[in-house]
Amino acid sequence: MRQYLSFLIILLSSSAQSQKTENLVQYVNPIIGTERMGHTFPGATVPFGMVQLSPDTDTIPYENDGHYNPDVYKYCAGYQYDDKTIVGFSHTHFSGTGHSDLGDFLIMPTVGKLQLNPGTADNPESGFRSRYSHKTEVSEADYYKVKLDDYNIVAELTTTARVGFHLYTFPKTDSAHIILDLMSGIYNYPDKNVWTFIRIVNDSLITGYRETSGWARTRTLYFAMQFSKPFIEYGSKDFGKREPYRGFWGKFDQRKNFPALAGRQLRMYFNFKTNEGEKIKVKFALSPVSQENALNNMHAEAPGWNFGKIKEKGQKQWNKELNKIVIDADKEEKINFYTAMYHAFINPTIYMDENGYYKGLDQNIHKAKGFTNYTTFSLWDTYRALHPLFNIIQPKRNGDMIKSMLAHYDQSVMHMLPIWSNSANENWCMTGYHAVAVIADAVAKGNTPFNANKALDACVTTAHHRSYDGIGLYEDMGYIPVDKNGTGTSTTLEYAYDDWAIAQMAKKLNRMDIYKEFMKRSGNYKNVFDPSVGFMRARFSDGSFKKDFDPLSTSGQGFIEGNSWNYSLFVPQDPASLIQLMGGKKKFTHYLDTLFTMHLPDKFFAETEDITRDGIIGGYVHGNEPSHHIAYLYNWTDEPWKTQETVRMILKNQYHTGPAGLGGNDDTGQMSAWYIFSTIGFYPVAPGSDVYQIGSPAVNAATLHLENGKTFYIEAKNQGGNNVYIQKIELNGKPLNRLYITHSEIMNGGKLVFYMSSKHA
Amino acid sequence: MRQYLSFLIILLSSSAQSQKTENLVQYVNPIIGTERMGHTFPGATVPFGMVQLSPDTDTIPYENDGHYNPDVYKYCAGYQYDDKTIVGFSHTHFSGTGHSDLGDFLIMPTVGKLQLNPGTADNPESGFRSRYSHKTEVSEADYYKVKLDDYNIVAELTTTARVGFHLYTFPKTDSAHIILDLMSGIYNYPDKNVWTFIRIVNDSLITGYRETSGWARTRTLYFAMQFSKPFIEYGSKDFGKREPYRGFWGKFDQRKNFPALAGRQLRMYFNFKTNEGEKIKVKFALSPVSQENALNNMHAEAPGWNFGKIKEKGQKQWNKELNKIVIDADKEEKINFYTAMYHAFINPTIYMDENGYYKGLDQNIHKAKGFTNYTTFSLWDTYRALHPLFNIIQPKRNGDMIKSMLAHYDQSVMHMLPIWSNSANENWCMTGYHAVAVIADAVAKGNTPFNANKALDACVTTAHHRSYDGIGLYEDMGYIPVDKNGTGTSTTLEYAYDDWAIAQMAKKLNRMDIYKEFMKRSGNYKNVFDPSVGFMRARFSDGSFKKDFDPLSTSGQGFIEGNSWNYSLFVPQDPASLIQLMGGKKKFTHYLDTLFTMHLPDKFFAETEDITRDGIIGGYVHGNEPSHHIAYLYNWTDEPWKTQETVRMILKNQYHTGPAGLGGNDDTGQMSAWYIFSTIGFYPVAPGSDVYQIGSPAVNAATLHLENGKTFYIEAKNQGGNNVYIQKIELNGKPLNRLYITHSEIMNGGKLVFYMSSKHA
Repeated sequence: MRQYLSFLIILLSSSAQSQKTENLVQYVNPIIGTERMGHTFPGATVPFGMVQLSPDTDTIPYENDGHYNPDVYKYCAGYQYDDKTIVGFSHTHFSGTGHSDLGDFLIMPTVGKLQLNPGTADNPESGFRSRYSHKTEVSEADYYKVKLDDYNIVAELTTTARVGFHLYTFPKTDSAHIILDLMSGIYNYPDKNVWTFIRIVNDSLITGYRETSGWARTRTLYFAMQFSKPFIEYGSKDFGKREPYRGFWGKFDQRKNFPALAGRQLRMYFNFKTNEGEKIKVKFALSPVSQENALNNMHAEAPGWNFGKIKEKGQKQWNKELNKIVIDADKEEKINFYTAMYHAFINPTIYMDENGYYKGLDQNIHKAKGFTNYTTFSLWDTYRALHPLFNIIQPKRNGDMIKSMLAHYDQSVMHMLPIWSNSANENWCMTGYHAVAVIADAVAKGNTPFNANKALDACVTTAHHRSYDGIGLYEDMGYIPVDKNGTGTSTTLEYAYDDWAIAQMAKKLNRMDIYKEFMKRSGNYKNVFDPSVGFMRARFSDGSFKKDFDPLSTSGQGFIEGNSWNYSLFVPQDPASLIQLMGGKKKFTHYLDTLFTMHLPDKFFAETEDITRDGIIGGYVHGNEPSHHIAYLYNWTDEPWKTQETVRMILKNQYHTGPAGLGGNDDTGQMSAWYIFSTIGFYPVAPGSDVYQIGSPAVNAATLHLENGKTFYIEAKNQGGNNVYIQKIELNGKPLNRLYITHSEIMNGGKLVFYMSSKHA
Repeated sequence: MRQYLSFLIILLSSSAQSQKTENLVQYVNPIIGTERMGHTFPGATVPFGMVQLSPDTDTIPYENDGHYNPDVYKYCAGYQYDDKTIVGFSHTHFSGTGHSDLGDFLIMPTVGKLQLNPGTADNPESGFRSRYSHKTEVSEADYYKVKLDDYNIVAELTTTARVGFHLYTFPKTDSAHIILDLMSGIYNYPDKNVWTFIRIVNDSLITGYRETSGWARTRTLYFAMQFSKPFIEYGSKDFGKREPYRGFWGKFDQRKNFPALAGRQLRMYFNFKTNEGEKIKVKFALSPVSQENALNNMHAEAPGWNFGKIKEKGQKQWNKELNKIVIDADKEEKINFYTAMYHAFINPTIYMDENGYYKGLDQNIHKAKGFTNYTTFSLWDTYRALHPLFNIIQPKRNGDMIKSMLAHYDQSVMHMLPIWSNSANENWCMTGYHAVAVIADAVAKGNTPFNANKALDACVTTAHHRSYDGIGLYEDMGYIPVDKNGTGTSTTLEYAYDDWAIAQMAKKLNRMDIYKEFMKRSGNYKNVFDPSVGFMRARFSDGSFKKDFDPLSTSGQGFIEGNSWNYSLFVPQDPASLIQLMGGKKKFTHYLDTLFTMHLPDKFFAETEDITRDGIIGGYVHGNEPSHHIAYLYNWTDEPWKTQETVRMILKNQYHTGPAGLGGNDDTGQMSAWYIFSTIGFYPVAPGSDVYQIGSPAVNAATLHLENGKTFYIEAKNQGGNNVYIQKIELNGKPLNRLYITHSEIMNGGKLVFYMSSKHA
């Protein structure tokens, strides 16, 4: 009877939900992660938007001598919560990365004396930047508002996919300025700006483009900028080196009211007179293809001047996406959860104009036929949980993302799938060839709107690229010797996993030669395991292991962004065999227990890139991705309840609702995707398989509204802070006597009920 | 009876000519003008070709501190006949300009030790350049051949409109190299190279692009390079500053066999093994739009590897164009004449892909609808005689050129017709707005495949651009004061002429308000005439004339590239009124006589840009354009026979068949067009009218094969070195009792017979 009633309630609530979209935007707090290590941005974007318009509190350049400035790292997303000044609002940002680029087309409204340099944080009067206070700051999904205290200007931002919409409320003044800084950029080292071209089309429209050579080596971004009110006058200053020859351009004073500008380092200003409270609006559209397309994007997405309508439309889009998982939880949990959903739906980003054209990796213009082209693929991070999450709640987009990766492959003169690609560029960041895992995962889950056999060929070609990052050595020796490649040990582990993913895909496509070849390769992790110490260990070309082994050290030990303690567990494709290798379940459990409870020496933090104490639990590094599956490995031991308590402990420890709420870089949504999966009770330990390991649901209930029209309902009875252990599970009313569920069980719709307890089974 | 016979002969020869094209290519010698001041190039091009592939004997850069290096001027076309070494063969050149750009994509074949810098002329072993000798050099229309002595390589070049075709005959060697220098360029000052992007598509195909900021401020040129034989290996060197951040590109050794290159200063090499006499061919296609279009251009225009066929096709094209005027003259005259025809048909250049797309001034991609888009408009030079010549023998192309100028206008954010435009850029070189004269001339002559009323609007808008080069002052004061604009006096004269041209066009289109306005403006030349000295003279804002007047000086006197002696005659629109102003016919005749016979002080040459003794006769400067109409001004005096002898004297004095045969820069064909007109007996003193002033034909006969299918036959009976005076003229058998003929008299076909004598009438 109780069951019957709850079933009825589910039916009712489920049908209610399908009729009405809940206002979940209210729980999104983009400020989360903007302090310290999260590297998120507080500004405005629609889901997966090309324009991500956000305040930059600093855009620290590299040192003039070209050396790395450690402060650069803080400003990956342009904004640090502790800062007291805003330099301006720029239109492109990565979310949660540990390295950066972008920050294009910074706009700043000012009043009074015109200043064309940003000034310093210590002395904001020295430039156009302004003090601001968090008290006046409003940060919502697709909406940002702040008062620029030095100018008494209220700035509001919203966006469409390809258009940034600025609304500036000015005081009464005869000297209002809107500055367009075409020099500013994130990770803005000397000579990053390659060229800028500007046309002042009329008294309220500007078009142009900027080319940069940054993390994306050859990147061009076109724009169209429309003011709601004609400017009275305008001008520019070229901060670049004087061009030695300018010929008859000397006929003109290009600094003032001159409509044809070009150069390497330009800043522009537009002057207005304003009444008290007068609103000047700016629409700023981007295109990867042309000025014309930027203008078309503007006309298509943001006709008219109704800021509120654009904001409303953007938040409606967000509500639609956020409603894909509706949870029953307390408010704090909802804030964490929907902010995680928000962060998970920022990257990859649309990289295509309204008319379907985009710039490819080959720097040719292509038309995306039958798909939306995406970029910003931080695949070393996102293959783990973000793309698997998309296979459940964004399958169409994930299909388009894979089509975008296959287009990248087709355009790649190196004949490789993307490693870390952005804006028609490959930056080769990090290791492995994890695009194959994303593709294999989609194949395993039957989400293949792309040509799966062609995709498999691309995976195989990529994995056979012998000149790439030790692949030749890996193929010849079964591991990558660290005398040849400094991070060869972790790369060997990553390739082995990727190879397994290729094998799974091949099996499903009945291409058994490939299956056999890559299954064999997938066992290569064994070749860097040293049984004498029980750890993965750097190995030399002569077969010997590196002598001065330190499993805690992250430097010089053959691993990238991690140590042997963590990387030794990186065999997600076959934990059972790993456990054998490591001496059986008991020893393995002890290993995990030790990892989660050990005390790390200070030395560890000094030498380790991208990791601080924030992201660490014992020796377990949640702030960096290679460990993300580790908590779920207890499921292969005799003590799976430890997965349950550990997952809950990580959720509690690593995710908070404050500005410093993220324990590490959000990594374009991977950290958030881990959170989402773990919160609803399961996690994809090995993308490329169709199973999810059961963890411990941290909500009372969660309804997954699937694109196929079905609903998967998760209930965690008796769940609570102490009630983290699973007593039993029922799937569609029948006991589920295993620690995983399959993808089809979710996609078929149904009901998964956890019975929680404060005591483990 | 004699008349009847000669008529028959004409009919026969004329019909014979229409059946068979004479081999006139044999008379073309592209070497003419390559020594000293001509600034022509000896390499290969088809008529008006986008690719103009030619050896560069040096590409002297600006000084490192950005200062002008005077040697730069010598290398406007990349080649100086006196030089002993060739650096390589590049694909774009201006013909006869006094300033430059281009020199894109220099290719050099070498053997032996690989060198990736060009080395010096004094020490060619220090780099990849090679010694050569004029003995092995063959220079024809669309064909160039030379032996590179240091390498024992024979290089041959030919082209299609958009493809350069290289044929290199190697000795036997294991170390043959073909160098692709992506740094090299003409007028190559520091930072001129903006960006280079390269893809090595496979073992014999490379595509990419290069952006430069030179005379053309924002220029991108795409290419596709195909080898006839796979290279064994390849590599590159980046001579640019080290990029401070290159991220994970450090995974790769980009110097060798790495297919994805980008940077600011790159040179590449491709290695081969060759047998004795083995030929390696290279096809190098350009596009202003994309790599894809470059490849399409190659496939469309130059399929296969038959060098001889491409050359044959190119020379056939030349013969077709050269046959538009078939002259009867001695061989020396034919060499001068057909080389002038050749030089007249090099610029403007096609700037459009096979598929009709091109890059516009707005840096957007446009499709040329119903016309061929051209660029390289050196209008201050070419409005005078080159475009008028085109109205007779290239009317279709001239219509397309005007359509290209109108497209430029449509794309101009300044709403101006071109001044000096190249490669989707305006460089603002020189003075006036002479595009209006080109358009007005076409309208006057009824050659208007364009919308003439819309074109008139563009002319009027351009002429009303008050912020441009003194136009506002000119409109307000009737002249441009030299205290506001250093060359305001000559610019006043040029505007006045251009305004007259606009007025003529307006009259023909029955837009009488515009006619009246611009006729009034066309009298402004009077405002800079000082009757007290009888010269045009610099004038200040307060109305007074500049005190220290020196009519010989070209510096600080208000004139550009000329002195008052020459510029005082610049009223081509109304010589009769000028004569009045200057005191009547007698005084005026004396003025002209003096000009042609005076002795210039050395000071004149020291201070005068772009003029040497080569281009001077007395004080008459033929080497610079503002004087080109002067010899014909005697026609308005009582001694028109002086036009006849003076024209002949100039023809004899200023045009020769040797490498130093041109007395000044050919100026994209203007000097050659003057020669062609004058040689066949008439000249367009005032483009924008439909009349040609009669001079003195220097050939026995000339047959103009018109595009309308008609033939205009010119005969100069008894013509010879001393017989330069006209006794009488008959047009179609009837006496012509005037000193001009009209455009329609030519275009209707017919026969013009001059009866020449050694004594003037």
